[in-house]
Amino acid sequence: METIIGTIAGILTSISMLPQLIKVVREKEVENLSWGMIVVLLSGVSLWVVYGVMKNELPIIVSNAFSVLVNLTLLIYYFKYKDKNA
Amino acid sequence: METIIGTIAGILTSISMLPQLIKVVREKEVENLSWGMIVVLLSGVSLWVVYGVMKNELPIIVSNAFSVLVNLTLLIYYFKYKDKNA
Repeated sequence: METIIGTIAGILTSISMLPQLIKVVREKEVENLSWGMIVVLLSGVSLWVVYGVMKNELPIIVSNAFSVLVNLTLLIYYFKYKDKNA
Repeated sequence: METIIGTIAGILTSISMLPQLIKVVREKEVENLSWGMIVVLLSGVSLWVVYGVMKNELPIIVSNAFSVLVNLTLLIYYFKYKDKNA
């Protein structure tokens, strides 16, 4: 039971930035987004990947590597559209 | 060493939404924010709290309970300011 709850929780937190990324890609506007949020989150999930590799725990590696990918893409789009509106 | 990395990673991912919340409170604008992101993240961290309680792991409970608080506040502000701009 804990494993099921943990797996669902992990999937939810991993995919949570996807709706935000989709919204940014569609609307090309990032004015109300906080780059601090993206950078802190990106640092955090990157360290989780390191942690997962050290402990050899594949679920931690996979879910956080996915988050790194989504947040890195979001950060690139952030600076792309931030310049546009400046 | 793993514990240090894991602790820093946990703190970073837990506080990551704080800059976003501060920005929203200051600027009172949420137009480019995705409510899907907030709701999915809120569901995820809430389930992490349940998981932490089940496994009796205090660090998981504390860090995710903090995230629940931040994201719940963000969601309340989201709907407050979303209505304003509509």
